[in-house]
Amino acid sequence: MKKFINDPDDFVDEMLEGILLANPNHLRSIRDDNRGLVRIDAPVKNKVAIVTGGGSGHLPLFLGYVGKGMLDGASVGEVFAASSVQQMLDVTRAVDGGEGVLYVYGNYSGDVMNFEMAAELAETEGIRVESVVARDDVGSMPKEFEDQRRGVAGIFYLYKIASAKAATGASLDEVKAVTEKVNNSVRSIGVALSPCILPSVGKPNFKLGEDEMEIGMGIHGEPGIKRGKIDSADKIAESLVVAILEDLYTNQEIKEVSVLVNGLGSTPLEELYVVYRKIHHHLENKGIKVYKVFIGEYATSLEMTGLSVSLLNLDEELKDLLDMPFETPFHVQQ
Amino acid sequence: MKKFINDPDDFVDEMLEGILLANPNHLRSIRDDNRGLVRIDAPVKNKVAIVTGGGSGHLPLFLGYVGKGMLDGASVGEVFAASSVQQMLDVTRAVDGGEGVLYVYGNYSGDVMNFEMAAELAETEGIRVESVVARDDVGSMPKEFEDQRRGVAGIFYLYKIASAKAATGASLDEVKAVTEKVNNSVRSIGVALSPCILPSVGKPNFKLGEDEMEIGMGIHGEPGIKRGKIDSADKIAESLVVAILEDLYTNQEIKEVSVLVNGLGSTPLEELYVVYRKIHHHLENKGIKVYKVFIGEYATSLEMTGLSVSLLNLDEELKDLLDMPFETPFHVQQ
Repeated sequence: MKKFINDPDDFVDEMLEGILLANPNHLRSIRDDNRGLVRIDAPVKNKVAIVTGGGSGHLPLFLGYVGKGMLDGASVGEVFAASSVQQMLDVTRAVDGGEGVLYVYGNYSGDVMNFEMAAELAETEGIRVESVVARDDVGSMPKEFEDQRRGVAGIFYLYKIASAKAATGASLDEVKAVTEKVNNSVRSIGVALSPCILPSVGKPNFKLGEDEMEIGMGIHGEPGIKRGKIDSADKIAESLVVAILEDLYTNQEIKEVSVLVNGLGSTPLEELYVVYRKIHHHLENKGIKVYKVFIGEYATSLEMTGLSVSLLNLDEELKDLLDMPFETPFHVQQ
Repeated sequence: MKKFINDPDDFVDEMLEGILLANPNHLRSIRDDNRGLVRIDAPVKNKVAIVTGGGSGHLPLFLGYVGKGMLDGASVGEVFAASSVQQMLDVTRAVDGGEGVLYVYGNYSGDVMNFEMAAELAETEGIRVESVVARDDVGSMPKEFEDQRRGVAGIFYLYKIASAKAATGASLDEVKAVTEKVNNSVRSIGVALSPCILPSVGKPNFKLGEDEMEIGMGIHGEPGIKRGKIDSADKIAESLVVAILEDLYTNQEIKEVSVLVNGLGSTPLEELYVVYRKIHHHLENKGIKVYKVFIGEYATSLEMTGLSVSLLNLDEELKDLLDMPFETPFHVQQ
């Protein structure tokens, strides 16, 4: 195992300490164990607060989206493990500005169970909580079971739109409604070429042959929908965008999209652009306009080699909210 | 070779096309082969223009630093190969706003030779050109040969300060002077855990044992100063920062620095923060204040696993210039 680590048991602690030391003007820890981080100016009065949480090992997910114009707080789990109810509740209390809290998190059983319990406890304290659960991964379940799909990189769009809407002074119901709209309009699918290694385990979390790829693999190495010989970048790009469009087209018209090409950890930035090129041409040929593009690392899986593509079907409201500025430790938009 | 590519001969073309398609509001191509990119609003009148260039395979280097508040143009070579004199000259002509052009590039023989020739040719056309050659890599040559050192990730600071100074309306001589100050005040050193694979070659560019690391390795796999068993993150962090400080302390006092922890391609973001944590504590213990931190991918080597650390010794002038905003396809500062 070749990693820049000390004792694997200290990995999350040391990572969190580094992030806090590097971002003293952006982030604040609200727990002695640093398992809850909030915006430096939290709670923001008279604004709906947006909260997320999830396991470590996916930076910039989840805590990396806390910041101005973005999330108010994140609760932080161990590597690939959900955070606790208490951590979620602590973050909820720390960010509530009197207008309620929206939980936005990925559809994984541990996260769902704990966020639901945290929401109940917060309500007993008089904090109104609503939730939107990201389910963008078309590779994780067929269309007829889309409620059971996992959340992956497309959650970035839920974060962005929810946070922007909250910043406009909208109510909790209004913020939830537009976030649900995003949830219905964003789809993702990934492809993996090599596994990752959890520091505490010390060996790869799955195996892929020397010339193999797996389409639809999840960000924890969950099985995908097709394993086969690695294709050309163009063929891979096309198969991913076709899978997303087929799924989206079944219930909505698509004229203009935002595209996110996300590296899973070890994929060179150059290759993400090679793939984006083909996606752009494919969309153009279908008469679909590309409004705004995000390319880089948005939701990783430690050093996994691979990428995911997300498309968000846009309308005028979403375009305006997508354009609003934000500033986080990993990404800034003016 | 597991890569998202098509024909390896098309790798740079397709990457450039993807970058241009993704950044229509930021970048403009000035050559049919896209081997010269400039700011969308170039030439900027009455401003010294800053130009760089170099081989592909190092994104965000080199072209990724073209943008508002940053570089005016970049000439683009094949993977790990210098760009041509003609490409450099074309970029120079396209960005000259009447106040002259500063070339800022890394100390590699092909780049030096071609930029020197391009400067001569530009001068014959009446464009005044000055140059600053980045030599920040303390791992590449001992102190007594520091003029022969290679340029690595520390060139980010030369770009940032040169561009900010030019944006203030300073003259070519003033911009060159402050860029030389940065060149004398920034030092870097890298450590590699695994090699990269050039698309056209198809196999790793060097070999490292299963438990080995190499301190001081360059971003093209140039030999470093020490190969050995991989150490803990803390020990590696300390040895890198000590090597830099020993070199810097020989000719200047150090009270406040900016730190850049740069991933070489495959290193998880989490690990960069684990390493930063130790660097921060080491500097603090030495009474050195950290002013501003940059952590992420700033100068890569395709999918090489490794990282580099750069320290810039700051004074008030450099702090002010470092804080000025910029917007590029890969990094934005408000």
